[in-house]
Amino acid sequence: MAKTINLAVIGYGFMGKAHTNAYLQAQHFFKHDHKINLKVICGRNEENAKAFAETWGYDDVETDWRKVIERDDIDAVDICTPNNSHREIALACAKAGKMILCEKPLALDGTEGEEMVAAVEASGVPNLVWYNYRFLPAVTHAKNIVAAGELGQVFHYRSNFLQDWTISEDLPQGGAALWRLDAKTAGSGVTGDLLAHCIDLARWINGDIVSVSAMTETFIKERVHQETGEKTAVTIDDACAFICRFENGSTSIFESTRYARGHKALFTFEINGRDKSLAWDLHDLNRLDYFDHGVPSDRRGWSNIHCSDGDHPYAGNFWVPGLCLGYEHSFVGAVHEFLSHLDDPSAEKRFADFKDALGTQYVCDAVLESAKTKQWVDVKRV
Amino acid sequence: MAKTINLAVIGYGFMGKAHTNAYLQAQHFFKHDHKINLKVICGRNEENAKAFAETWGYDDVETDWRKVIERDDIDAVDICTPNNSHREIALACAKAGKMILCEKPLALDGTEGEEMVAAVEASGVPNLVWYNYRFLPAVTHAKNIVAAGELGQVFHYRSNFLQDWTISEDLPQGGAALWRLDAKTAGSGVTGDLLAHCIDLARWINGDIVSVSAMTETFIKERVHQETGEKTAVTIDDACAFICRFENGSTSIFESTRYARGHKALFTFEINGRDKSLAWDLHDLNRLDYFDHGVPSDRRGWSNIHCSDGDHPYAGNFWVPGLCLGYEHSFVGAVHEFLSHLDDPSAEKRFADFKDALGTQYVCDAVLESAKTKQWVDVKRV
Amino acid sequence: MAKTINLAVIGYGFMGKAHTNAYLQAQHFFKHDHKINLKVICGRNEENAKAFAETWGYDDVETDWRKVIERDDIDAVDICTPNNSHREIALACAKAGKMILCEKPLALDGTEGEEMVAAVEASGVPNLVWYNYRFLPAVTHAKNIVAAGELGQVFHYRSNFLQDWTISEDLPQGGAALWRLDAKTAGSGVTGDLLAHCIDLARWINGDIVSVSAMTETFIKERVHQETGEKTAVTIDDACAFICRFENGSTSIFESTRYARGHKALFTFEINGRDKSLAWDLHDLNRLDYFDHGVPSDRRGWSNIHCSDGDHPYAGNFWVPGLCLGYEHSFVGAVHEFLSHLDDPSAEKRFADFKDALGTQYVCDAVLESAKTKQWVDVKRV
Amino acid sequence: MAKTINLAVIGYGFMGKAHTNAYLQAQHFFKHDHKINLKVICGRNEENAKAFAETWGYDDVETDWRKVIERDDIDAVDICTPNNSHREIALACAKAGKMILCEKPLALDGTEGEEMVAAVEASGVPNLVWYNYRFLPAVTHAKNIVAAGELGQVFHYRSNFLQDWTISEDLPQGGAALWRLDAKTAGSGVTGDLLAHCIDLARWINGDIVSVSAMTETFIKERVHQETGEKTAVTIDDACAFICRFENGSTSIFESTRYARGHKALFTFEINGRDKSLAWDLHDLNRLDYFDHGVPSDRRGWSNIHCSDGDHPYAGNFWVPGLCLGYEHSFVGAVHEFLSHLDDPSAEKRFADFKDALGTQYVCDAVLESAKTKQWVDVKRV
Repeated sequence: MAKTINLAVIGYGFMGKAHTNAYLQAQHFFKHDHKINLKVICGRNEENAKAFAETWGYDDVETDWRKVIERDDIDAVDICTPNNSHREIALACAKAGKMILCEKPLALDGTEGEEMVAAVEASGVPNLVWYNYRFLPAVTHAKNIVAAGELGQVFHYRSNFLQDWTISEDLPQGGAALWRLDAKTAGSGVTGDLLAHCIDLARWINGDIVSVSAMTETFIKERVHQETGEKTAVTIDDACAFICRFENGSTSIFESTRYARGHKALFTFEINGRDKSLAWDLHDLNRLDYFDHGVPSDRRGWSNIHCSDGDHPYAGNFWVPGLCLGYEHSFVGAVHEFLSHLDDPSAEKRFADFKDALGTQYVCDAVLESAKTKQWVDVKRV
Repeated sequence: MAKTINLAVIGYGFMGKAHTNAYLQAQHFFKHDHKINLKVICGRNEENAKAFAETWGYDDVETDWRKVIERDDIDAVDICTPNNSHREIALACAKAGKMILCEKPLALDGTEGEEMVAAVEASGVPNLVWYNYRFLPAVTHAKNIVAAGELGQVFHYRSNFLQDWTISEDLPQGGAALWRLDAKTAGSGVTGDLLAHCIDLARWINGDIVSVSAMTETFIKERVHQETGEKTAVTIDDACAFICRFENGSTSIFESTRYARGHKALFTFEINGRDKSLAWDLHDLNRLDYFDHGVPSDRRGWSNIHCSDGDHPYAGNFWVPGLCLGYEHSFVGAVHEFLSHLDDPSAEKRFADFKDALGTQYVCDAVLESAKTKQWVDVKRV
Repeated sequence: MAKTINLAVIGYGFMGKAHTNAYLQAQHFFKHDHKINLKVICGRNEENAKAFAETWGYDDVETDWRKVIERDDIDAVDICTPNNSHREIALACAKAGKMILCEKPLALDGTEGEEMVAAVEASGVPNLVWYNYRFLPAVTHAKNIVAAGELGQVFHYRSNFLQDWTISEDLPQGGAALWRLDAKTAGSGVTGDLLAHCIDLARWINGDIVSVSAMTETFIKERVHQETGEKTAVTIDDACAFICRFENGSTSIFESTRYARGHKALFTFEINGRDKSLAWDLHDLNRLDYFDHGVPSDRRGWSNIHCSDGDHPYAGNFWVPGLCLGYEHSFVGAVHEFLSHLDDPSAEKRFADFKDALGTQYVCDAVLESAKTKQWVDVKRV
Repeated sequence: MAKTINLAVIGYGFMGKAHTNAYLQAQHFFKHDHKINLKVICGRNEENAKAFAETWGYDDVETDWRKVIERDDIDAVDICTPNNSHREIALACAKAGKMILCEKPLALDGTEGEEMVAAVEASGVPNLVWYNYRFLPAVTHAKNIVAAGELGQVFHYRSNFLQDWTISEDLPQGGAALWRLDAKTAGSGVTGDLLAHCIDLARWINGDIVSVSAMTETFIKERVHQETGEKTAVTIDDACAFICRFENGSTSIFESTRYARGHKALFTFEINGRDKSLAWDLHDLNRLDYFDHGVPSDRRGWSNIHCSDGDHPYAGNFWVPGLCLGYEHSFVGAVHEFLSHLDDPSAEKRFADFKDALGTQYVCDAVLESAKTKQWVDVKRV
């Protein structure tokens, strides 16, 4: 008999939808001993929350997140609110003994993050941060190949996340839809929003980053703020690039921007080892580029693996070879791994928990500090 | 208040799963006046059917499809059984006044198909055949561009569907999982299974095919039959290729095989007009290749459109620009269009109904006859 | 001491330039016992011929090809004239004991071709037809892999050559630059011009074609003729597609057109065997796509081999790994192989001689006859 | 009547061959008022030099470069020797009033470079540095599009040059073939060898670089030296990455390495402007990726321009649309532009002269200094 987890999701925006879909789909395509029940959707606008509940099958609606945490019938809370509220909600959840699934980045900065890690460790609640891209079959395949030591010594890692959606000067900042452009709410710009994804995968696949030299830029200096209607300084980073060194001796470059005309969501990584290299691109997320130096010289080339066979990670739970999965399955995989870990806590934890996410936060902090001081900065380690 | 359609799905295999997922997801991501209720899953193995019902949320289980049709509480039936049962079940449904959503191909041949079309026309029940690929954003985008006349005179259309999963001589034929290799159950091999998809899209996008010259081949002549354990003649076509002419004067080649080593599910089409050309590939299903001769000569090239923006078909109902949809959304779109047509029968019917599918069946029949007689064959027209 | 071959090239158009360049470059990048001396360029316009001689270093100029053949100081003749003159010039060369390097296609049809083969066989002169694409490193690499039996049983071969340069109705036919649009001069349209290249590679790599079913189309029925200024019927095939069977049991499709908007010179082939598949594209001519089914399932993918390493065919004679060769090197390789065969006639003949080219001509003839009669046609064999 | 330039090339290695080929081919495919005569090839091994002269058509052979410069019959000298000899030879040439075509990088460092620039400016001799990649049609096309202001404000530039040929620990350093691994001869590792190419294109296309933060790494610390047979410290940079800012406000990342397994010569750049973006890759050198934001949203994509039409730079001088050029044409274009500038010194100088190359040298120097000091370094400007 499956153990039911009554879940409340706080926030019904883009991430609320992506996570909700994942809770349902993970239970359609995978089997677990634990079962998630969509108990409460919480949002400030009651009408919107009710419509969301109707569409997705939530039992109840709440408009105040504090009420949610007070409810005894809630076992787990998913925090899909803007970044500046993660800490407060998470601390309340930990105190109330609720499991927490928190949208990334963990917090506004490492100081907040440390407090959150301390709280979940003190209360012992299961916790996850939605670094969802780990769970695409091609990305997991890459992780497994590296973890098996197949690459030999790693020389290089590179990753970027390029978008172009904020180039127009007419785009306002702040408010419900555009809080990602307001540093007070978001903490930072592309660093926390996009580079955090690059860094999480990098740390998961290639280990700790030890030092960074970074550069940020804000191309449009002032934008109208949606809440005040006034033109105010833009305080986020529109673009960020850094060079760095990993614990394992490899060197690396990272770049993110919302000003790379032509790229909607170009998220890539590449890792070069003595014996093999791997590369991936979110725009063609089912494929892993694979170079094996062990192949005879005249047959060597980058192989394009369509990770949709039964022996690719997760793929066998869906369709048949050659058929693509979409973006949403990254979240489905996150739920699957979270439930698997509840089923068997002794198994490898493949999702990012608060502590992992704090490690990523420390890199983001070092990057922002380096950009400010124009010095190499050592990364604090978890 | 949404009008509820109580649905029974007959068959819980690959297609039963894909369709069931689509019924749920279409209602998560689109709004309609009609609502589908997963009432009954029907399959011969009760235990399996119960497990499927549990996973996907069906109210009831049946093990005999005739019982399903006798039930008054069923409004619509989805036929996911092997091809040789489509006719009988569909005729029964039509007689009982149930809406029908039938897996493709419509029937074993045109004669069966004609009887089925006559039945649904006589009873007036809404009917759909699951030619699902129409509803991927990139494919619909292509259809719309052609329908708007942007290509000018069309010169060529080409399409193929290449797989490699039956190359091993050790693969048996027949039985539950491998009925597609047995002509008695499947009607034909790649022609009905794969080329039918190519033909449906071709007819939808480029109009009627008027005559064909075809060639089929069966590379492995005998395989063990799962039901008897004996080695018997393979009667399906392992591969089929044909040249043809369309009503609009364009010339065309089609090819399908399960012996193209290296291709899991390479399904492509390309259309060349005087002013523009378009191309698409299922392995990268979010992209449409687009060539516009109106661009100045030194800037002309094939543009790779990632059909994930809000103004691409269907894409705005899912995520944000740059994020991929998967194979399953082709079925989601089919359900969405079926419900939209129930909501407003005066709107353009964008899915294939029985009559459309009969047109595709006629092309398949002509192809198989041409391969047998080694003559050009005129295609019967609906 | 190198044996000097005094060469005359008849025709200074596109092919005259490509061949001349190849004679020089083959001797810069390869070593041979025979040396080609650019003795005579022959063209009807003396001024143009002199300018060409000056640019490329020819010793002499002639304006009448018959004079060239009468000269005792000429050892070899390169025929770069329109197709309807190949037979006459080649017969004269054979009679005069000159080596012949003839532009493809060999002749207007098989009857002419048979006469030409008989003539060179009677006189014993070395002879080559410029099926140049064999000698690109990636193409030769493919040939060698297939010849080594690595593919196992071959199931499929497909090839096309798509262009878009004759779509405009305003393009005239005939005359110096556009004789390829006039069947009297060219023999046929895309069949002899483009499909002949596809067929030569197919026969070289995959063996004899035994029967074909073809379709041709002429989209623009009348064009102004440059020589008369009058609008006359277009008699060439603008497009041609055929299905066929090879001696080795594989099935195949071929297509060529000058009406595929967006393709300048898309020339591709793909071959699928039980164990491996190979694919190539002239637009990226340095690459060979390679699929090896022997690789473990989760690592299998199409490998993209950049054939520019020292152990790829010919590549070591040029630059260093990763650096591209261009189109012109296909001709350079042809000259290299011709000279190598003169150096050592016992070595494998890797270029197409008149007899090979007659085999290709027979396929073209069968294709055109099939398109006319709408019947399958057996291919005559050399 | 063409003015003849008697040329001496010093060094018959890889670059001696590439340049010699370019002198001949530039005169086959382009017309100029000046004509280059291959007068002298100079190399220390007389036998090798003679063989080279025979193959390529040099009149004379010399074994001491000083003799070459003493000859009155030499008008121009091409310096193809290792980097540590460029300065001395160039100074001698300038003093002797010879035109100079010097292999890149200009010098071991900026101090040497300044002396060389002063020398050529004092003597007034025409001078060129072989930053050859500017002259590939796709690269020149990119330069022209940017120069026309079509991109609007530029936000980002990124470039890398990745190789994998020095990963083996068994590879020695120094000596004739491997002087690039010895800092005494080469000045630096990938910075001067590979990044110098990236930087030249970046400065040509996007303007001056003002400051850099860099990181270098030497993965294999000791290698046997070919000249001594002893294992000695490797003093070059195996890998180098840097972030930087351009004069025009754009931010940028550069990376180069010889340890990126799977990349033979992956040389790419991408530039993102407000209105357009461009990208290029040496492995597919005929293509320019082009994104035009002015295209309607649902038709926008990266266009892949095959720069082989008559209206693409240089392409009309070679073959017909769709046919590829190779690596060697980058050098051909350099010679063409050098001769064009001699023909008409008032025309735009499109090649890098000593002063341009000094600008690139300054960036390299700043990069190496930054890597050493771990500080941002301002770039000295020419």
